[in-house]
Amino acid sequence: MRFSFPLMALGLEVGMIVLFGLFAEYETSWYDYQPNTTQITESERFFQLYPLFQDVHVMIFVGFGFLMTFLKKYGFSGVGINLFVAALGLQWGIITQGILHSHGEKIQIGIKNIINADFSTATVLISFGAVLGKTSPIQMLIMTILEIAAFAGNEYLVGEIFQATDIGASMTIHAFGAYFGLAVAGILYRSGLRKGHRNEESTYNSDLFAMIGTIFLWIFWPSFNSAIAEPGEEQNRAIVNTYFSLAACVLTAFAFSSLVTHGGKLNMVHIQNATLAGGVAVGTCADMDISPYVAMIIGSIAGVVSVLGYKFLTPCFAAKLRIHDTCGVHNLHGLPGVIGGLASIVAIVMGKSKKSTIAMQAAALGSSVGTAIVGGILTGPSRERI
Amino acid sequence: MRFSFPLMALGLEVGMIVLFGLFAEYETSWYDYQPNTTQITESERFFQLYPLFQDVHVMIFVGFGFLMTFLKKYGFSGVGINLFVAALGLQWGIITQGILHSHGEKIQIGIKNIINADFSTATVLISFGAVLGKTSPIQMLIMTILEIAAFAGNEYLVGEIFQATDIGASMTIHAFGAYFGLAVAGILYRSGLRKGHRNEESTYNSDLFAMIGTIFLWIFWPSFNSAIAEPGEEQNRAIVNTYFSLAACVLTAFAFSSLVTHGGKLNMVHIQNATLAGGVAVGTCADMDISPYVAMIIGSIAGVVSVLGYKFLTPCFAAKLRIHDTCGVHNLHGLPGVIGGLASIVAIVMGKSKKSTIAMQAAALGSSVGTAIVGGILTGPSRERI
Amino acid sequence: MRFSFPLMALGLEVGMIVLFGLFAEYETSWYDYQPNTTQITESERFFQLYPLFQDVHVMIFVGFGFLMTFLKKYGFSGVGINLFVAALGLQWGIITQGILHSHGEKIQIGIKNIINADFSTATVLISFGAVLGKTSPIQMLIMTILEIAAFAGNEYLVGEIFQATDIGASMTIHAFGAYFGLAVAGILYRSGLRKGHRNEESTYNSDLFAMIGTIFLWIFWPSFNSAIAEPGEEQNRAIVNTYFSLAACVLTAFAFSSLVTHGGKLNMVHIQNATLAGGVAVGTCADMDISPYVAMIIGSIAGVVSVLGYKFLTPCFAAKLRIHDTCGVHNLHGLPGVIGGLASIVAIVMGKSKKSTIAMQAAALGSSVGTAIVGGILTGPSRERI
Repeated sequence: MRFSFPLMALGLEVGMIVLFGLFAEYETSWYDYQPNTTQITESERFFQLYPLFQDVHVMIFVGFGFLMTFLKKYGFSGVGINLFVAALGLQWGIITQGILHSHGEKIQIGIKNIINADFSTATVLISFGAVLGKTSPIQMLIMTILEIAAFAGNEYLVGEIFQATDIGASMTIHAFGAYFGLAVAGILYRSGLRKGHRNEESTYNSDLFAMIGTIFLWIFWPSFNSAIAEPGEEQNRAIVNTYFSLAACVLTAFAFSSLVTHGGKLNMVHIQNATLAGGVAVGTCADMDISPYVAMIIGSIAGVVSVLGYKFLTPCFAAKLRIHDTCGVHNLHGLPGVIGGLASIVAIVMGKSKKSTIAMQAAALGSSVGTAIVGGILTGPSRERI
Repeated sequence: MRFSFPLMALGLEVGMIVLFGLFAEYETSWYDYQPNTTQITESERFFQLYPLFQDVHVMIFVGFGFLMTFLKKYGFSGVGINLFVAALGLQWGIITQGILHSHGEKIQIGIKNIINADFSTATVLISFGAVLGKTSPIQMLIMTILEIAAFAGNEYLVGEIFQATDIGASMTIHAFGAYFGLAVAGILYRSGLRKGHRNEESTYNSDLFAMIGTIFLWIFWPSFNSAIAEPGEEQNRAIVNTYFSLAACVLTAFAFSSLVTHGGKLNMVHIQNATLAGGVAVGTCADMDISPYVAMIIGSIAGVVSVLGYKFLTPCFAAKLRIHDTCGVHNLHGLPGVIGGLASIVAIVMGKSKKSTIAMQAAALGSSVGTAIVGGILTGPSRERI
Repeated sequence: MRFSFPLMALGLEVGMIVLFGLFAEYETSWYDYQPNTTQITESERFFQLYPLFQDVHVMIFVGFGFLMTFLKKYGFSGVGINLFVAALGLQWGIITQGILHSHGEKIQIGIKNIINADFSTATVLISFGAVLGKTSPIQMLIMTILEIAAFAGNEYLVGEIFQATDIGASMTIHAFGAYFGLAVAGILYRSGLRKGHRNEESTYNSDLFAMIGTIFLWIFWPSFNSAIAEPGEEQNRAIVNTYFSLAACVLTAFAFSSLVTHGGKLNMVHIQNATLAGGVAVGTCADMDISPYVAMIIGSIAGVVSVLGYKFLTPCFAAKLRIHDTCGVHNLHGLPGVIGGLASIVAIVMGKSKKSTIAMQAAALGSSVGTAIVGGILTGPSRERI
């Protein structure tokens, strides 16, 4: 037992090296570089996207990492395990996504793959938020492997089979990660949650550390929602829409936090989390021609729903459904992710995008939530055997 | 009273959505994209500026936010209210600046607007530093609306009417924000400042949190001073000059901090603030052909003046002028902003720039300080009624 | 004595201003800009590199700065002195490197110089880690001047005379900085180390502050290793290789931390430091065509070696060699830097790069370690006189 974690970690790293040796190579489209063309070159595109990649990278490691430091006794575990899970997950994400998308050829590793690899780790980090303080490193390691495989499968289904659109991944990352984590948390509930309760408190300093995570996530969300968008108009819209959705969300989240909190005060959990819901909810529609004011409406709704979720749904989940959601990921990623999917259906109804159909968007939403719940339920028990 | 803040916040957000619905649309210059031109395209320019925008974004939300966590009891308020004020301010900044600059047409929202929107929030965040710990969220909300309107008016006057140059906004943002805040602080003084005194202390951890703000502001200041500069030579000079001005400022600020502190020790307030004065002071001249060594002279002077201000002026302001400046914004933004304006006059005298005249620069400086003081005095009383 | 530090700092800043006035000017290649060329312009290249520069800038000031906050009583000194040393060092780095490389002409200051200036400060900040808590600001000031001069000399020897390749500076920065610092620490040992011992502890919060440094270093390391690489294929490989080397390193560092720690727990010192060794070790080979899986092997080895170094070598150094290495820079920068140099020799043997020869790489490694040790020994005594 003492050596389970180190041996599994080493074994997985050896496995990753073998898989990369067999299936991965550098992107070779560089060799097609033609100096006389006036088109933008691959190299220039690399450098346009690299800053966006780094923004996403900061979100994954600083944003998610420090957001999970709010518990007084799990601060170091939060940011440490976050680093471990993401470092494992990005390697595994390259392999699982690469094999599905490369049609039997070698995986060509360039800027797009490493952005998508970072994305795939986000699903596990969101789920981690639901089980924080209740899992060991070895359980997180198993969850990382299983969840990213499920994510890659669902993402392939949504993007390639349904041909649905989900540029900011409201459905395929946020809703998926949240419902996967909730399903695991539901399974884990039976095996002695109560002993964790007395540590479920924050301190003044732990709340400030968590704000580092919040603020970096908030700042760089426009890059998350636009990193893999089509260059030009669509990518720029994704940035602008996310910028305004987040700004509007802050106002409604602060307002409702004050409304539902005793004495009209602001609740730190709401400030740390609900202010981000606008980034999640505008994700699916981010690159559509919806107008900035519609992005602000989406963000405003997400801020309200998220605060109300923290106030009323989370206690209800714990009491009635026996699902204990440590960070409240259902309110930050689950509900706003579903809002994102629904918003895209409304946008298509109103003729704002011809990229997908109502049926395909609905299928994508259903598939993301469904795969996540089934995947989480199947993953849960495997974690108790250890 | 209990519902004043949430209802005002919600009302303002609804108002913003209506204003954006009526007056704002995506930038449409994308449609003019010509694939065969060798000129740099709008889309490429977007991606050149996007990283600079994100640097400014980090300064606004992480830099200003964490700089205000140094008080042991206002850490969470500092960073939380900073987020709220900036999220409101950037929406309002788009509208006020947009209406002034778009000559009756719809506001075309692209990368330049969102950079300028972030800039406009900086004025309020600077003023917030002067009144930190003495205001309620609702007072900050009112100040945000009034100050950004005044800022947009003054900025239009300086840039369009006077045709003055102020690329890093030493005068229009830094001096303006500081003197506006000081005027408000002067008005507020009468209504019971003393009760705030016992909490005016920092702790070891709160000082380290504040250093997060300091360091991110210091790092990204070259992006602040260059983000809206002319592409090419001027933009690059703005980056290089700011880089060296800040480096020189650190040396003189440390030296004078040791000189004026008991026992030759370093004073944490000086390290957190005066090291940034070089970024403020070089702002107006940043894109001029002044030579790197002149940028270093400007930074060196700013570091000295800022430390001396903290040591001698701030206590004097509190005792004699009855103006209590919590963060010492006069020393970080006020005096260095004035130095920036004066430096631009010297630079024009010495033939380093033909973009403006001595008279116009003097008018810009006078207008920025004057509008700020009048605006602050008029804003102050409105805040006591609540 | 009371005025030694401020007077020396002011004197140095005046000296820098004079040197910049005499020897530095803005880069003038802008004037060669030809609007009709289809080649990428200097201005576009500036903007491709500026985000990478800012990533490196964050590593220097946030990464190194906060990594040194882990000691409970030196947190503020760590990040404060880091800022001072880097601000002085970058000015001095421009001058020393510029004079060596500009062949008697004026130093043309552009994006490459400021990247290299930041790099040169990294050597001193690494050495600072070996002597943290044992030196005064004035000692750091002297070390900055002497070490950067030695670094510039060695870097010229390695790059221009040997024509060796070291794109991520495993040898010229990391190994150099570590062995320089160890040599100084060895000299300083005699003059009363023991009084510092009781403060050599971390607290829960100081460990979290240090993680801010770790995570930002980890995130932006691909930019460090690629910032001065050849545009196109090589620069992209440098990014991709570093990304995977770091990810692999995290897994082996966590695994071995658990293996060598009592009860299979994770050791915070290992998480804070050894997870970064992969970035150091892949540096020299980063732009070579080594395949991603080889980068992962290099990172895996570095993670193992670094943890074993912390566990077994550091205590041995203190006890047997009388070298007290506060942050364990030997394990994070020294050994992984040497691994980087050796890896490049293996890569050349295997035909992965034709840029250099085995002999020249070996000479570069020997020169970097040798110059550092001699330089450190010569610098050490000068620091005791104060």
